[in-house]
Amino acid sequence: MTDISPLPFGATIGILGGGQLGRMLSVAAARLGYRTHVYEPGANPPAADVAHRVTTAPYEDAAALRAFADAVDVITYEFENVPTSALDLLEAARPIRPNRRALAVSQERMAEKDFLTSLGLATAPYASVKSAADLDAALARIGTPAILKTARLGYDGKGQARIMSAADAPAALSDMAGQPAVLEGFINFSHEVSVIAARGLDGSVAVYDPGENVHEGGILRTTTVPARLSPSHRSDAVLIAARILNALDYVGVMGVELFVTAGGLVVNEIAPRVHNSGHWTQNGCAIDQFEQHIRAVTGWPLGDGTRHSDVVMENLIGDDIERVPALARETQVAIHLYGKAEARPGRKMGHVNRVRSRP
Amino acid sequence: MTDISPLPFGATIGILGGGQLGRMLSVAAARLGYRTHVYEPGANPPAADVAHRVTTAPYEDAAALRAFADAVDVITYEFENVPTSALDLLEAARPIRPNRRALAVSQERMAEKDFLTSLGLATAPYASVKSAADLDAALARIGTPAILKTARLGYDGKGQARIMSAADAPAALSDMAGQPAVLEGFINFSHEVSVIAARGLDGSVAVYDPGENVHEGGILRTTTVPARLSPSHRSDAVLIAARILNALDYVGVMGVELFVTAGGLVVNEIAPRVHNSGHWTQNGCAIDQFEQHIRAVTGWPLGDGTRHSDVVMENLIGDDIERVPALARETQVAIHLYGKAEARPGRKMGHVNRVRSRP
Repeated sequence: MTDISPLPFGATIGILGGGQLGRMLSVAAARLGYRTHVYEPGANPPAADVAHRVTTAPYEDAAALRAFADAVDVITYEFENVPTSALDLLEAARPIRPNRRALAVSQERMAEKDFLTSLGLATAPYASVKSAADLDAALARIGTPAILKTARLGYDGKGQARIMSAADAPAALSDMAGQPAVLEGFINFSHEVSVIAARGLDGSVAVYDPGENVHEGGILRTTTVPARLSPSHRSDAVLIAARILNALDYVGVMGVELFVTAGGLVVNEIAPRVHNSGHWTQNGCAIDQFEQHIRAVTGWPLGDGTRHSDVVMENLIGDDIERVPALARETQVAIHLYGKAEARPGRKMGHVNRVRSRP
Repeated sequence: MTDISPLPFGATIGILGGGQLGRMLSVAAARLGYRTHVYEPGANPPAADVAHRVTTAPYEDAAALRAFADAVDVITYEFENVPTSALDLLEAARPIRPNRRALAVSQERMAEKDFLTSLGLATAPYASVKSAADLDAALARIGTPAILKTARLGYDGKGQARIMSAADAPAALSDMAGQPAVLEGFINFSHEVSVIAARGLDGSVAVYDPGENVHEGGILRTTTVPARLSPSHRSDAVLIAARILNALDYVGVMGVELFVTAGGLVVNEIAPRVHNSGHWTQNGCAIDQFEQHIRAVTGWPLGDGTRHSDVVMENLIGDDIERVPALARETQVAIHLYGKAEARPGRKMGHVNRVRSRP
């Protein structure tokens, strides 16, 4: 930060998206003396309870976008599906951090895979699929089992179809509803880990200890820290994340999901934002991922991400919210609820961090 | 909590006072799925950045108080100088937790001392002083050095005058500006500790590890956990706090300041609210004092207050705010700023928690 002045205290951080990530970013911003202004198309978003201001407007409302940009000092986002037209308009007025390239790469699966491959990083074998002929050719090259995904970003397992044999191909293609898709080969991995990494405005990089993820039905269920990783894989994970951040001239926190295989680490996906698999940092570190992101986008030095405690993070999904009274009685369980009124199946209602002092 | 239903998710907690304590209470409330509505006479209070709603009105505005009470489900407070008339009006509409008796006892030094003495707890020798004759008689009994304090609660060392010898008496009395006062004898103590204790709606009590306090100019400077305390003093501290809470049928978090003397622990002061000397819990425990207070006043079971890390809390007062850029570069330092625009001498601008993993 030698040559960089951080945003002055009292400045306002604009956040695109008002979900739980925006909510927890708002709290972290307040802790550093900043205000937040959330832009969210939906009514009563979770972040509204703790944000200083909220704009409720669609991403197509140019006047609302302009007023929002005028009212904030820097813009960040909690999800990556913001339309390009909105970003163009906002970027003309205020810096957007992380930058547009990070967004572009993560919004399109082909761009993401091509980018990762260009860095020499391992990914699942993949091919662009825009037609039945493309799919046949891709299956011939990659083989089965494989998974067909919409090329534009899905979320929590949506827009994905498994292909166990060539006979599944037509149904999978029909699931894509005419959208461009990517075929990915299956990776024979023992488990998935993710690395939450941050890069500051001064180019410094800080990486949290990798967490081990368990998914159910395409939704993250638990993250356990520390992850099962050999010392060499642990340092590989850090180096992979740093390489990605530096290549993108990235500013902010990124989630990098990695498959652990006999042959080494394979990059599954990157998310240019704070990440569900980093929620454990709220109770495992002095500086959590949300504050780290705010530090990065406001020009503070990155914080110390050393883990002071082991943590198991568990998502509370849908009816899991009914377990809260019992969870509230457990020892060393930190509860984080998102203030959502209605518990729908698959909806993330909150999470708990089970803290274990390090031996 | 067997027979007690907690407030439903999405309910609103009214908080009297919009300072940093209200700010941190609001964040804790959000974490448990509640909204907060802050009532504060001053403009742009620190809590406004993270509260769902703010009422800006004096405590004499009956209409504003009534509208506030109608808009919330339970009322708590972050400072204890709320006028009786306002409390009367509010209590008619909604439960106030902690209760009126706790407030009454802590608003008046004589009532507080009499209450503590009635429980068999040790306090400094004290006497009511309403005139020069009272003061002479009190000095004759208690001796010097002594300290004269306004009988109504002061804050951060205001409304206090030291009396080193009888010659100081007239000036000290004049400092009271005609207000009723209390003369307190000096206690020969080695250090001060404080206990942050909570009592739930179900009558259960949870007590955090005592912290050791250092004051400068009447303002808390640091709290170090663990405090220097013998095992018997440590259990005495817990028992004293529990006795006070139970006697008051208290619901919420209380700060109890204790002097450590050769003859045992002496109660200095109680505060019926979250307390500056409990800020270390934000980074030392899975459940911090703010969440513990919200749990109590909303009818949740109290949380586990076990300390997972050692912590030194340091207040950032006035120009200390300029140290933030350097503090931000230190390892294992968690920064908590209050969003106050102007750094006046003696004003609490924030605090830092230096976290140390337990051996």
